[in-house]
Amino acid sequence: MDIEIATIGGYEEVGRQMTAVRAGDDIVIFDMGLNLSKVLIHDNIRTEGMHSLDLIDMGAIPDDRVMSDLEGDVKAIVPTHGHLDHIGAISKLAHRYDAPIVATPFTIELVKGELEEEGKFNTDNDLVKMEAGETMSIGDSGAVDLEFVNVTHSIVQAINPVLHTPEGAVVYGLDKRMDHTPVIGDPIDMERFREIGREGNGVLCYIEDCTNANKKGRTPSETVAREHLRDALYSMEDYDGGIVATTFSSHIARVKSLIEFARDIGREPILLGRSMETYSGTAKRIGIDFPSDVEMVGYRQSIEQTFERIMNEGKENFLPVVTGHQGEPRATLTRMGRGETPYQLEDGDKVVFSARVIPEPTNEGQRYQAEKLLRMQGARIYDDIHVSGHLCQEGHYEMLDALQPEHIIPAHQDMSGFSGYVELASNRGYTLGRDLHVTSNGNVIELV
Amino acid sequence: MDIEIATIGGYEEVGRQMTAVRAGDDIVIFDMGLNLSKVLIHDNIRTEGMHSLDLIDMGAIPDDRVMSDLEGDVKAIVPTHGHLDHIGAISKLAHRYDAPIVATPFTIELVKGELEEEGKFNTDNDLVKMEAGETMSIGDSGAVDLEFVNVTHSIVQAINPVLHTPEGAVVYGLDKRMDHTPVIGDPIDMERFREIGREGNGVLCYIEDCTNANKKGRTPSETVAREHLRDALYSMEDYDGGIVATTFSSHIARVKSLIEFARDIGREPILLGRSMETYSGTAKRIGIDFPSDVEMVGYRQSIEQTFERIMNEGKENFLPVVTGHQGEPRATLTRMGRGETPYQLEDGDKVVFSARVIPEPTNEGQRYQAEKLLRMQGARIYDDIHVSGHLCQEGHYEMLDALQPEHIIPAHQDMSGFSGYVELASNRGYTLGRDLHVTSNGNVIELV
Amino acid sequence: MDIEIATIGGYEEVGRQMTAVRAGDDIVIFDMGLNLSKVLIHDNIRTEGMHSLDLIDMGAIPDDRVMSDLEGDVKAIVPTHGHLDHIGAISKLAHRYDAPIVATPFTIELVKGELEEEGKFNTDNDLVKMEAGETMSIGDSGAVDLEFVNVTHSIVQAINPVLHTPEGAVVYGLDKRMDHTPVIGDPIDMERFREIGREGNGVLCYIEDCTNANKKGRTPSETVAREHLRDALYSMEDYDGGIVATTFSSHIARVKSLIEFARDIGREPILLGRSMETYSGTAKRIGIDFPSDVEMVGYRQSIEQTFERIMNEGKENFLPVVTGHQGEPRATLTRMGRGETPYQLEDGDKVVFSARVIPEPTNEGQRYQAEKLLRMQGARIYDDIHVSGHLCQEGHYEMLDALQPEHIIPAHQDMSGFSGYVELASNRGYTLGRDLHVTSNGNVIELV
Amino acid sequence: MDIEIATIGGYEEVGRQMTAVRAGDDIVIFDMGLNLSKVLIHDNIRTEGMHSLDLIDMGAIPDDRVMSDLEGDVKAIVPTHGHLDHIGAISKLAHRYDAPIVATPFTIELVKGELEEEGKFNTDNDLVKMEAGETMSIGDSGAVDLEFVNVTHSIVQAINPVLHTPEGAVVYGLDKRMDHTPVIGDPIDMERFREIGREGNGVLCYIEDCTNANKKGRTPSETVAREHLRDALYSMEDYDGGIVATTFSSHIARVKSLIEFARDIGREPILLGRSMETYSGTAKRIGIDFPSDVEMVGYRQSIEQTFERIMNEGKENFLPVVTGHQGEPRATLTRMGRGETPYQLEDGDKVVFSARVIPEPTNEGQRYQAEKLLRMQGARIYDDIHVSGHLCQEGHYEMLDALQPEHIIPAHQDMSGFSGYVELASNRGYTLGRDLHVTSNGNVIELV
Repeated sequence: MDIEIATIGGYEEVGRQMTAVRAGDDIVIFDMGLNLSKVLIHDNIRTEGMHSLDLIDMGAIPDDRVMSDLEGDVKAIVPTHGHLDHIGAISKLAHRYDAPIVATPFTIELVKGELEEEGKFNTDNDLVKMEAGETMSIGDSGAVDLEFVNVTHSIVQAINPVLHTPEGAVVYGLDKRMDHTPVIGDPIDMERFREIGREGNGVLCYIEDCTNANKKGRTPSETVAREHLRDALYSMEDYDGGIVATTFSSHIARVKSLIEFARDIGREPILLGRSMETYSGTAKRIGIDFPSDVEMVGYRQSIEQTFERIMNEGKENFLPVVTGHQGEPRATLTRMGRGETPYQLEDGDKVVFSARVIPEPTNEGQRYQAEKLLRMQGARIYDDIHVSGHLCQEGHYEMLDALQPEHIIPAHQDMSGFSGYVELASNRGYTLGRDLHVTSNGNVIELV
Repeated sequence: MDIEIATIGGYEEVGRQMTAVRAGDDIVIFDMGLNLSKVLIHDNIRTEGMHSLDLIDMGAIPDDRVMSDLEGDVKAIVPTHGHLDHIGAISKLAHRYDAPIVATPFTIELVKGELEEEGKFNTDNDLVKMEAGETMSIGDSGAVDLEFVNVTHSIVQAINPVLHTPEGAVVYGLDKRMDHTPVIGDPIDMERFREIGREGNGVLCYIEDCTNANKKGRTPSETVAREHLRDALYSMEDYDGGIVATTFSSHIARVKSLIEFARDIGREPILLGRSMETYSGTAKRIGIDFPSDVEMVGYRQSIEQTFERIMNEGKENFLPVVTGHQGEPRATLTRMGRGETPYQLEDGDKVVFSARVIPEPTNEGQRYQAEKLLRMQGARIYDDIHVSGHLCQEGHYEMLDALQPEHIIPAHQDMSGFSGYVELASNRGYTLGRDLHVTSNGNVIELV
Repeated sequence: MDIEIATIGGYEEVGRQMTAVRAGDDIVIFDMGLNLSKVLIHDNIRTEGMHSLDLIDMGAIPDDRVMSDLEGDVKAIVPTHGHLDHIGAISKLAHRYDAPIVATPFTIELVKGELEEEGKFNTDNDLVKMEAGETMSIGDSGAVDLEFVNVTHSIVQAINPVLHTPEGAVVYGLDKRMDHTPVIGDPIDMERFREIGREGNGVLCYIEDCTNANKKGRTPSETVAREHLRDALYSMEDYDGGIVATTFSSHIARVKSLIEFARDIGREPILLGRSMETYSGTAKRIGIDFPSDVEMVGYRQSIEQTFERIMNEGKENFLPVVTGHQGEPRATLTRMGRGETPYQLEDGDKVVFSARVIPEPTNEGQRYQAEKLLRMQGARIYDDIHVSGHLCQEGHYEMLDALQPEHIIPAHQDMSGFSGYVELASNRGYTLGRDLHVTSNGNVIELV
Repeated sequence: MDIEIATIGGYEEVGRQMTAVRAGDDIVIFDMGLNLSKVLIHDNIRTEGMHSLDLIDMGAIPDDRVMSDLEGDVKAIVPTHGHLDHIGAISKLAHRYDAPIVATPFTIELVKGELEEEGKFNTDNDLVKMEAGETMSIGDSGAVDLEFVNVTHSIVQAINPVLHTPEGAVVYGLDKRMDHTPVIGDPIDMERFREIGREGNGVLCYIEDCTNANKKGRTPSETVAREHLRDALYSMEDYDGGIVATTFSSHIARVKSLIEFARDIGREPILLGRSMETYSGTAKRIGIDFPSDVEMVGYRQSIEQTFERIMNEGKENFLPVVTGHQGEPRATLTRMGRGETPYQLEDGDKVVFSARVIPEPTNEGQRYQAEKLLRMQGARIYDDIHVSGHLCQEGHYEMLDALQPEHIIPAHQDMSGFSGYVELASNRGYTLGRDLHVTSNGNVIELV
């Protein structure tokens, strides 16, 4: 059976992930993501009403025109988890394919939200929920199956999809870290990866997340970030002024820790900001292990009212968890820094960034500016209380040991980001151009 | 009563700490430390046989000639904890003063060791043990007392000495972090600091450790480093080759964690290297909460024999904890990288640095070299599993809130390192040149 | 005669310089500058209509309330050169003092422009032109004189004012580099500095520009930047598309080099942007050695028309010199990057930044963004063709050797920036707190 | 005619360059270099007596075993210039091939020196001198020619060899910058490169030096470094103590500038150190445009005597140009820092590093240490007076425009270093895996 991999998007950048695997006549698409930075560099652009081709030209969504080179039918579109760089282009591209969108329940709910906000295209693909550990048959040959293996990432219900073919398994390895003690959900299913490496024809191809491939060692467990956060918040127990926290809205486990520690130190947590409500609301609705009684406020006007209430009832009784961890100019925290909200920061108030600055100058500049504004109001900054959601080098070594893949395709980075991975894969005996395929967007790699 | 502070050493650098406080006719000296980097830059120098004046000229030990400007008698020499930059010059300088050396039991034991190794001077000052929480009278006036307040640092039994005078307390604040959950010993005694700030005439002067004064936020608890280390070591549980760890020998709590986690993953920990034996042996001997049954090997020949035994019995059964966390050219770990020991590193073996690289180019170069040699033998590096032992900015704010000192003297850094502290103290209302004294080595500050 | 120095602004930051020297009953003020970054962090603020007190509260202009502590009359306000951080607060503060503004002709012209744009205050102080090398008497005592010593900086007609008093000279040393081959004007007058160091009572006090005090070596001459620029532009001689350059508008010597090299490679230079017209127009008007026939366009609408003309007549015939070297969001170059001007950038077009990025994250973020936008249009970036206008460490050593001052006051930096200077002055025998005065804004130092 | 390229060494690192081109039955080898860092990481290794295979195992010299995969005879070994990473393995590998070594006269002389020092192998290959601009026939087919095109680099007489084949030219582009005003020799021959791009079948393949491929803009001409150096040395004209300079010994143009400027400020230059004598002596001997009357001293004992003479006759009359620009522990300058030579550094003496620190931690550590030792003796450091010898991005664009190659092979870096080149070549329409060949050591690329 012919096996081909089309590297559509995310092979020259982080963002707008999209990969298609053809096994005989059947094609499965993994991820359809958005590169938000390509949108934000332009002033005043809203993507909701934009056409796919314009977004492709901007480099914001994957250029899926290479799909016409693949001879076969798309049988499933599989977003691996709910981050925008993996689901953000579904509303622009999925309607072109007559195939269901298959994902874990949490991811499906987020896709639904995306589709509802879309203003240009109508997407009526079926939305199919499948849990980690489950398998479905792909196409009519009876020879191809899709399996979801549970992985751990900075969002809940992330999986690595595996396409089982007669020629071996194709493992799509984006995005994960190797967490044996995640705060929510099951540990990464290394046992299953090891089985897949051993069973049948083994692994034909492994597509790997190279985000941290230039970083030594092991990405720590979410438990380590949780202990770090606990230490920081508990140390503020006696403080009787304002404490504000921010983190990635989609990072449900972290938000959960914030909620719990806020209560431990006698404060009422309130989630503020539109994306806070989207992600945490979804988590609550579908029964994730998440505090069900926490207040969430999404709309601007309600946020203002909530801040007024907080000021009236006493800042010392609350811990607002807000958007703005990267200093985004219009996020709630930045507006607080500018004094544009009813929440009055005072000398000594604490602002906790449970996130790291994404290392890109635009970002670093905005974050610096946001911190400066917060400081001008007297705030004290606690930052970098975080662990990455992506494998570092030791995780890559372990995955190669578990899967023993015949071919490897590094992804989710640019060439410079791939360099560490090429070095480590070479250490394990792979050779560039032979079984280690450094590629770019828009190529088709024939494996069989 | 006249109160003067002589800033003898460590006010232009990290290392060779020494400060004298005169209260009326009585003088107490805090710390007599060594700046090891001033020794190491010269080839083949051994300090044991060197004269004080030569070491002073090299900038290696404090220039205590300013002591002659203080009119009074030295009544006590008080090393605050057992690090070399606080006790390393006692063997060269203490014999000049007719006064006991007063310290916690662990520190006293380490001072004893220093005195035994000294080859040039004979020191017969009394060695007096005093526990954190205890107080002794100084001099004959009956008006001056010395108290030890328990603090938390990267070595056990660290204290901050407080000299109570009729004019208020002089608090010598070197070196600490604010740890409420240290792995060994009691939490920092913030309650007592707050009392000292309130009682009597309050705090006349606070001498502060500025090591991390340019760093935002809060230094995490040792518990956070412990969880990070646990996560790293537990993730290696299935590995059946060699695992080696290194950390600061004096960091008893960290060594304890290494020992415990080694056993948790089914390996026998062995401490290797002379300073490993010195510190851990001392801890064991004086009854610190430390595993009493761990093997320690200090001499070169015994280390070689131990490595041979490890190779014979199987590397997979052991976890050697060795010296060399900074890539020191002659340390055990570096020698392992050079293949000079019987321990054979193999492809995939793990080396865990539970330490961070001290950020100075010489050091960074040596550590890089050591890692490169280890990698050439196939080793995989896990590094930076560590938390600092020194307060960051939020800790400084908390100390100022607790003590409300009348005067502040930043220490334990150079001018550039003081800059963050000056900014934060200014935020709290202190003024440079009036009540905030940025000074240099060899000055006398008259407070009353 | 009493001599006091009031360190009013610019002793905790770069920007809003202001220092007053009292000699007996006479006071001279050196500089009244603006800290523009304190304005820009707020959205949509225009300073023209703002009150001094609000600008003081924002930290944008010097807090001159300390002037009331000086017993004497202000006899002259002396801006040392035309940069905004030295003249930008004159329109807000000078009207409070009944004293002439004394400066070199170029500086006076720029001050005039500032006063004309001011919308809140009316300033009718006399504007007095004095050339480098000249001296004027201050006050009625007959004992105090003001002299201008020629220095070299990144703007023409910079001087260091010297106040000669019976107690010795007070030398105000902001801002300069030691340039023996400046492209415009005379070399720095080291001969005169050496004389001042030797004559009479020598130098009582030297106030020094510490901008680069943490940098090794010597700041190169403008000639070096000129050769670098020549090499870059000559290498583009054969290119037949667009070439655009940007630099500091006030850097007349650099603009002159750009004009000359543009012509050497067969292109017509045009200066575009409001501040380009202000500075270069002023230089031309008062007879600086500057190409008199170059076109300058300041207003937005005229700029657009000029770009249209350039496009019509062929980009290959022109070299626009525009504003925007720091990626300022509204500058001409950034607008070109956004495609908001009629000038069409094409693949391969060259953009020359004859400037370095000011190392601050906000700035770095904006500059990165501007470059990214320019690149998205196909532009190729040549950057960092520049030399600093400020002394590095070797220049500081030379100044100390020449002046042999009794007292030194480091300025034009924050504490961290002073650290290198304190170290080098200590090497020359000065002692912190005795004759080396590290201070902050708002202090008065009594020298005699 | 078959055309193959064997990428033997220098495709995963900087150092040990070696590439073979097969055109039909004829093979030409470009470069046989040494990676010195792989030798230096081991203590006390001398390569002179070592066997090739051991050096290959250490990664110090190219692994030329892949040559057996090429069907043809080696007709020439062509080192492109005299740097060790291009000629340093000739003494270990050339004897295996029955072919002449063809190079420019200066390079040939340096190769001769290498062969004389070799202690293990006897090399009797013919040494053939060929000048830039000349061509020789390769093999018997009459269809293949070797041409030397003049380029500019940080050593004199560097060339880019071009192998003309019936299928087009193979241009070996290591190492060069685009210098139109070199201080010695002719400018880069861009005219000839443009002709080669246009004539016959054009350029089949271009192998490019990616050293600076991640750097923006244009590498400045040697003239810019010369003006920078002139500015620095002229500024010391009045100093009457010691001035010492260091630079790359092989950088004849820079050494020439040092000699000339030393004399301009009234000092006698003396070149000190073994490699100083090797390179400058060779330059003088073969008639390079170089001061013929300068004193050179190579042996340790003579260097000591020369230093004694300098001290006797007065340091102020000399300018020693010494080895040690990277802080190498045993170089002359480092020994001066340690006080191991008769040359006494005094407070205020100047040390000029006309070189930049090679950015690698081991190196940075050693250089830092050397500077610190020099400073401890009172020396003042002037550093970074240098320009790179390698193309930055704009030079790469220009080369692609001139040559219009069908295939490109990036070299002289690791994967991370290639990343900038891949991006820029992609901008020019090349595609990874199709006509842009990112490869590693030991591969064979079949072009025809």
